[in-house]
Amino acid sequence: MTLRYHTPLSPEEQTAAGLPAPWPFAIADRVRWGELDQLGHVNNAAYMVWFETARIRYFAERGVVGPEAGHVTVIRRGEIDWLAEMRGEPDYVVTVRCTEIRRTSFTLESELWSEGRCTARFRCVIVLIAADRSGKVALPEALRRRFIEADGATEA
Amino acid sequence: MTLRYHTPLSPEEQTAAGLPAPWPFAIADRVRWGELDQLGHVNNAAYMVWFETARIRYFAERGVVGPEAGHVTVIRRGEIDWLAEMRGEPDYVVTVRCTEIRRTSFTLESELWSEGRCTARFRCVIVLIAADRSGKVALPEALRRRFIEADGATEA
Amino acid sequence: MTLRYHTPLSPEEQTAAGLPAPWPFAIADRVRWGELDQLGHVNNAAYMVWFETARIRYFAERGVVGPEAGHVTVIRRGEIDWLAEMRGEPDYVVTVRCTEIRRTSFTLESELWSEGRCTARFRCVIVLIAADRSGKVALPEALRRRFIEADGATEA
Amino acid sequence: MTLRYHTPLSPEEQTAAGLPAPWPFAIADRVRWGELDQLGHVNNAAYMVWFETARIRYFAERGVVGPEAGHVTVIRRGEIDWLAEMRGEPDYVVTVRCTEIRRTSFTLESELWSEGRCTARFRCVIVLIAADRSGKVALPEALRRRFIEADGATEA
Repeated sequence: MTLRYHTPLSPEEQTAAGLPAPWPFAIADRVRWGELDQLGHVNNAAYMVWFETARIRYFAERGVVGPEAGHVTVIRRGEIDWLAEMRGEPDYVVTVRCTEIRRTSFTLESELWSEGRCTARFRCVIVLIAADRSGKVALPEALRRRFIEADGATEA
Repeated sequence: MTLRYHTPLSPEEQTAAGLPAPWPFAIADRVRWGELDQLGHVNNAAYMVWFETARIRYFAERGVVGPEAGHVTVIRRGEIDWLAEMRGEPDYVVTVRCTEIRRTSFTLESELWSEGRCTARFRCVIVLIAADRSGKVALPEALRRRFIEADGATEA
Repeated sequence: MTLRYHTPLSPEEQTAAGLPAPWPFAIADRVRWGELDQLGHVNNAAYMVWFETARIRYFAERGVVGPEAGHVTVIRRGEIDWLAEMRGEPDYVVTVRCTEIRRTSFTLESELWSEGRCTARFRCVIVLIAADRSGKVALPEALRRRFIEADGATEA
Repeated sequence: MTLRYHTPLSPEEQTAAGLPAPWPFAIADRVRWGELDQLGHVNNAAYMVWFETARIRYFAERGVVGPEAGHVTVIRRGEIDWLAEMRGEPDYVVTVRCTEIRRTSFTLESELWSEGRCTARFRCVIVLIAADRSGKVALPEALRRRFIEADGATEA
């Protein structure tokens, strides 16, 4: 089965790509030559760009929209575990799931899979703030429901 | 027809992607959110990364290999025309073709296509040098033939 | 007092740059236009590049050397708190300190200061592994002493 | 003499930094570890980021201002010559000068100097367009005069 890039993967496609269990959202891309460092490994900072790119597409998918919605998203905290070095220019899959929702913020978890291994894990906290920067904004009810139904998020 | 990313496109796929005429080599990718600048346009430097990424894959396809071949490639000159601004996170196709070969160097031409427009053109001169940096190296005969047969390159 | 970039700052220079208390290592740089995102803020991933750049220079300063030393450093875990958005192209100072040493790994803490505010905090765990990737390597005694004496690191 | 980074260099400072003759505008920075590629050389695309960063600061210096001025600058064409590979994390100086002005566009020339060598040359054409993208805009008279007086630009 050919890997489809830049397109949310079905559960079957995720399994075919080497993930042990499907995630609510997973998207594939391929390492760029320019992302390798002097030692021939993927540069650590490149992972952050990949998690960001996947997150933005996940946001589009879940309807966590931009300034026109009256709010913007701000990432407040991130925790990343680099589990295995990546060499060459392999394919990779980034997964995203909302695990917990609070009044004005939520937690996302991501994994990075490549060549049958989980090479990194990322967890971050996203806060909704007013587009005019006047303060935090409560998660719209429709968004809360989507996080719960699509991702199995729990309410804190 | 769905666009296949990171995979050399067939002539039919190139036409479907909006190219007026197929190239010997064309590969698709998608703009990343982080590649947009303050004005919401794709950053000019990002184009260079895309042309580089496509060039490396084109090199793999044509067998213009790395240090183990006894030579490395060095880009000596590049000319880029930015023809149209790109907004949002659209798909794009980068084409590559070798247009001219000389004793120790060759010329590549590339185009960038997105949403039915050619948004940039890139031409560069690549020199083959010995892996130990001792000097220029003549293009191997097999590579010359491949550039001529696959790309229609002319000998200067 | 003019801010010196790319050079370890003295305690007086750190204070003049707005840090409430000097760190054992602090180095200044300036935001690049290309690091700003669509909303005019510094892109989140850029912070990781800055922390990496400061870390590499800190490593040179402390003598945590590269492959020729028989070991390489691998970052295993990172935690980042984005505390305030950064706009425009201001100066910034990145601090680094080793806070804890273990047999084969150590913990670094960093802060990012700009325009009188701490805009981000970063903590990471670095592991020493053999240059041939055969396994973890114990911290050399001279390095342990330097971390303790220069940074006040504690032994776990 | 210590090199001052991120600050327009005086003629004396440029000479001390190894430039054979001073330019109307020159600004220094230092290679980042993450800008080196697998072969230990500065990645070709990084040069474009450096020329961009210097250009933006040159624009601020000459008063080629942003959207609030009613116009924005668009780079239309760039020509780059990579003259020498760069290794390690050396200092470098980027120079900028306006060489030619036309009704709605102008030409900039840049050089990149590091460790006493000119490692790259860049020439680009910048067009002024209305902030609302309605079309090209004539160079304001004050800006024409500044390009002529400060840089010795000629009128085409």
